[in-house]
Amino acid sequence: MQQKIMELCRRRGIIFPSFEIYGGASGFYDYGPIGVRIKKNLEDILRRKYVIEDGCFEVECPTVTPEKVWIASGHVSSFTDLLTECAKCGESYKLEQLVTEQQPDDLKNIGKVDAMKMLVDSGKLSCLKCKSTQLGKPYAYNLMFKTEIGAGKQRQTGYLRPETAQTIYLPFRRLWEVVRKKLPFGVMQIGHSFRNEISPRQGIVRLREFTQAEVQYFMDPEDKKTESFSEVSALKVRILDKKGKEATLTLKQAVKKKVIDLELMAYHLGVASKAFTDMGMAPEKLRLRQHRDDERAFYSTDTWDVEYESKAYGMVEMVGLSDRTDYDLGQHQKLSGESMEVNIEGRKFVPHVFEVSYGIDRPFYCTLESTYREEGEGEDRRVWFSLPKEIAPYKVAVFPLVKKDKIPQKASEIFKELRSQGLYVLYDEAGSIGKRYARADEIGIPACITIDYDTLKDDTVTVRDRDTKNRKE
Amino acid sequence: MQQKIMELCRRRGIIFPSFEIYGGASGFYDYGPIGVRIKKNLEDILRRKYVIEDGCFEVECPTVTPEKVWIASGHVSSFTDLLTECAKCGESYKLEQLVTEQQPDDLKNIGKVDAMKMLVDSGKLSCLKCKSTQLGKPYAYNLMFKTEIGAGKQRQTGYLRPETAQTIYLPFRRLWEVVRKKLPFGVMQIGHSFRNEISPRQGIVRLREFTQAEVQYFMDPEDKKTESFSEVSALKVRILDKKGKEATLTLKQAVKKKVIDLELMAYHLGVASKAFTDMGMAPEKLRLRQHRDDERAFYSTDTWDVEYESKAYGMVEMVGLSDRTDYDLGQHQKLSGESMEVNIEGRKFVPHVFEVSYGIDRPFYCTLESTYREEGEGEDRRVWFSLPKEIAPYKVAVFPLVKKDKIPQKASEIFKELRSQGLYVLYDEAGSIGKRYARADEIGIPACITIDYDTLKDDTVTVRDRDTKNRKE
Repeated sequence: MQQKIMELCRRRGIIFPSFEIYGGASGFYDYGPIGVRIKKNLEDILRRKYVIEDGCFEVECPTVTPEKVWIASGHVSSFTDLLTECAKCGESYKLEQLVTEQQPDDLKNIGKVDAMKMLVDSGKLSCLKCKSTQLGKPYAYNLMFKTEIGAGKQRQTGYLRPETAQTIYLPFRRLWEVVRKKLPFGVMQIGHSFRNEISPRQGIVRLREFTQAEVQYFMDPEDKKTESFSEVSALKVRILDKKGKEATLTLKQAVKKKVIDLELMAYHLGVASKAFTDMGMAPEKLRLRQHRDDERAFYSTDTWDVEYESKAYGMVEMVGLSDRTDYDLGQHQKLSGESMEVNIEGRKFVPHVFEVSYGIDRPFYCTLESTYREEGEGEDRRVWFSLPKEIAPYKVAVFPLVKKDKIPQKASEIFKELRSQGLYVLYDEAGSIGKRYARADEIGIPACITIDYDTLKDDTVTVRDRDTKNRKE
Repeated sequence: MQQKIMELCRRRGIIFPSFEIYGGASGFYDYGPIGVRIKKNLEDILRRKYVIEDGCFEVECPTVTPEKVWIASGHVSSFTDLLTECAKCGESYKLEQLVTEQQPDDLKNIGKVDAMKMLVDSGKLSCLKCKSTQLGKPYAYNLMFKTEIGAGKQRQTGYLRPETAQTIYLPFRRLWEVVRKKLPFGVMQIGHSFRNEISPRQGIVRLREFTQAEVQYFMDPEDKKTESFSEVSALKVRILDKKGKEATLTLKQAVKKKVIDLELMAYHLGVASKAFTDMGMAPEKLRLRQHRDDERAFYSTDTWDVEYESKAYGMVEMVGLSDRTDYDLGQHQKLSGESMEVNIEGRKFVPHVFEVSYGIDRPFYCTLESTYREEGEGEDRRVWFSLPKEIAPYKVAVFPLVKKDKIPQKASEIFKELRSQGLYVLYDEAGSIGKRYARADEIGIPACITIDYDTLKDDTVTVRDRDTKNRKE
């Protein structure tokens, strides 16, 4: 399944590994001509939901950032994975991954880090490449890409941001002035982030350079409420809570039964779930999972993911929602000496942050997997992506039936007319109409318009629907 | 002028220096809530011109790239500036900048690099900070940000791309399949690039992390033509050619008189000039400048910039157009061993590349400078950006006249109706209508709609135009 999709993605210019001519580098992918359009459409669905409809602001900050930012956030000291190298062949492994693949049961009883370190000594783990059990002493490996900013004596250490979030917190005081000193307000950023993963081997589900769409809501800790819960409260969802209990119920029931403590959290889980189904994912593949107490960041009071049940990768985290309290602004206040306090009705406090953190590449893959269709055999076989109109790389394809009798001229006129409205439209005049339908299906174009002799006579065209193959004048 | 604009930009959340709470880092800026909208609109103007109208493809590639890419392109060996450090206070300087500011005439007679090195010894140059003439021996400083990809023994050197162009060339063979083996075709990429400038001190005109929109046309060297020249040939332009000769003439005349050799070059200079006036820049501030033979890259046969005559920064290069020949694809073919040749009608050759390379941050600044307006004194004083509708951060602002008698409810309905069409709309109910107009003007909103008692009666609203201040029902 995943192989078929990825083969199609490479062949049709949707996505493909980067730097192939130089042997590649794992964890990097190019979005090709078709993939870019789909990706931008996914981003625009989120932009529309959060910026236009919810009134969030958008910012765009640098990805290269001075070290102090990540000292404050805790990333310099703690954003690490345990790494072990095979003593024989030199292959590097993220220890956690090796354990999960080879001895998952050994992780359960004692603290994770200790359990993993002991496993290396025990000889129960082996190199995936050369099978040697001689693995080097595990050490903490920082996942941030390091660089240097500036020249000569002004040189300072910098990192590529591992998340957009911190770059949103830094200008909090400026944003506070822009919103004219009112809470709550939300700030979104869509952009690249970077994690120097030890040995990523999961396609675009684990990238070293990836796109995030993060929304940070700055809130009064005494007023973590929403007025919009009713918009999503009837939504039925699958839930796995922090105690491992599964349930399917409406968000309203989940709040009532205290499966989800905060109505605000339930609201945002609903908005995210809706965003994913708008992208074309099957609702029954989605699951809301609460982080266990031992996996949640120490400063967060509650964290949930929305996951997609992928055939290729298992449960894939697509968005994380977290009540980050006043931790981040507090840390930056401490390290920078600049006040992050606000004064509302006589109360002085550091605002709390409620975070909604989307990946874009993972929903991109999950959308493709969820909308992939195939039917028929031999000559009749066809494959297509049943992408929603808003997500499709082209809104429509325009085909001249034949290459003569002024039909291409007429088709070209219609093509230019559609394009002049700012629409992405494909023009294709090569091969039989059947082949052109097949090519359009493969990249998920929802409708094809064929210009024929009737068009010249009475301006009617044949419109063919991707999913049903029905044609109508 | 520049100070006024930048003060307004900071105050209203258009753009502001990054990492201010940690003392900043020169060459990095945040786009705030208003700036992001304007920036995205500038990008969309180019996307519409090149991708929708001209049929180019768009791609999105990583910014972190393995070293080999930049060995092939020549950046590892040659993408350098001469750097000198003050022996007394340690301040670093780009030598060229120091010479240009202090002894520009000394650069004219002999080769640039030698002239500059001699000046350091001569004592004619001094530190801008401490005035010492004891400057260190100049050395070549590579402008790429360096990092490391991967862990342990798989670790390899990487660089942040100093241009998007090379990342477009790498997957040429894949793109060649996607376009079904036809020339010419164009590929655009809009994304961040990085140059570790020695001491950038020119706001967003010289950034260390910046946005580019580059279009690479892959062409048959025997067919570097365009069929669309007539669309721009009547455009009157200011030209400074490589011999230093200035002229004002139409693009058609420029080609006829061989001031511009290649009609294709003239066409793209016209398209770029039109893009800039669409962004709101005054046409008389634009100049087409041809690179001198001694400044042009050795592989390029001809290079032109479109510049904007800025009050603050002098002539600012906003886009570079260059016939790069088969240099880039040839270099990657050589280093990777992968063929970049195509076979068309029995001829085998490496395609040529014609490049159109836009910055986004510079046109952003130039647009603001060109559309900045102020009038009146005291109470009547107002400032505004006369931004074209397509560029404005919000299409319209909606104001309820008063906060009572169901007027806010009606205004809110209209606001939601506009927003549901996917439009960026501002809602503002704070302060007098005059103050709200002033705030909307400062961020360039073209029209304000006021909802009053008449709206409740007969659904009429008052629309006020930003530039003329005229109001109509």
